[in-house]
Amino acid sequence: MDALLLVAHGSRHPGSSDEIRALAAKIAQTPGHQFDWVDYAFLEITEPSISEGVLDCVRKGAKHITVLPYFLATGRHVSVDIPTELEKARQEYPQVRITSTPYLGAAKEIPDILVRLSQEAT
Amino acid sequence: MDALLLVAHGSRHPGSSDEIRALAAKIAQTPGHQFDWVDYAFLEITEPSISEGVLDCVRKGAKHITVLPYFLATGRHVSVDIPTELEKARQEYPQVRITSTPYLGAAKEIPDILVRLSQEAT
Repeated sequence: MDALLLVAHGSRHPGSSDEIRALAAKIAQTPGHQFDWVDYAFLEITEPSISEGVLDCVRKGAKHITVLPYFLATGRHVSVDIPTELEKARQEYPQVRITSTPYLGAAKEIPDILVRLSQEAT
Repeated sequence: MDALLLVAHGSRHPGSSDEIRALAAKIAQTPGHQFDWVDYAFLEITEPSISEGVLDCVRKGAKHITVLPYFLATGRHVSVDIPTELEKARQEYPQVRITSTPYLGAAKEIPDILVRLSQEAT
């Protein structure tokens, strides 16, 4: 069983959790992936935390969890905090393979998207 | 003269300003836009601030500034803080047209990019 775990920052804004939940559902419906389900978790402020998200995946029977950092900037969160959480999870669940993708901001498509968005100014 | 002003959150991480500067340069080189130049500014922590970024565009002769919020989540920053800064700027420079695009997280391409990134796990 193969799980994708989308990891966002977390926010005090009440709608932000719904936004990530909706995004996880959209990813699940997008063609081109091999995941049995798409879950989500937050680095701070909002629940579920990363360790809760990993636990949920493990309980559902995940043998491989792919973590996707939904962040734009490389910084402490991406380079230290998330890897630290994942290392803890690997030690706790040695039978589960836990890997991570590059963070969203590193995606090569971003400049093209920004140019397209720039044509939608109101 | 038409300017694009990329607005990022700002970070204590020393490399984050370079990352936004490099992204602004990449956008400038991406085909499909009408901007004479691409500038960048930060909502907090990092300089230049939004008001400094707008002032810089005005000094360079911008008649229209398109602001692009480089944010993933809709929250106070996107819904209140940036619009408030832009409203101040409009009052200060009534001769300049200042508009804003949707924030990056609202772009319809995001789920496809996340699926592609999920195939790059290491």
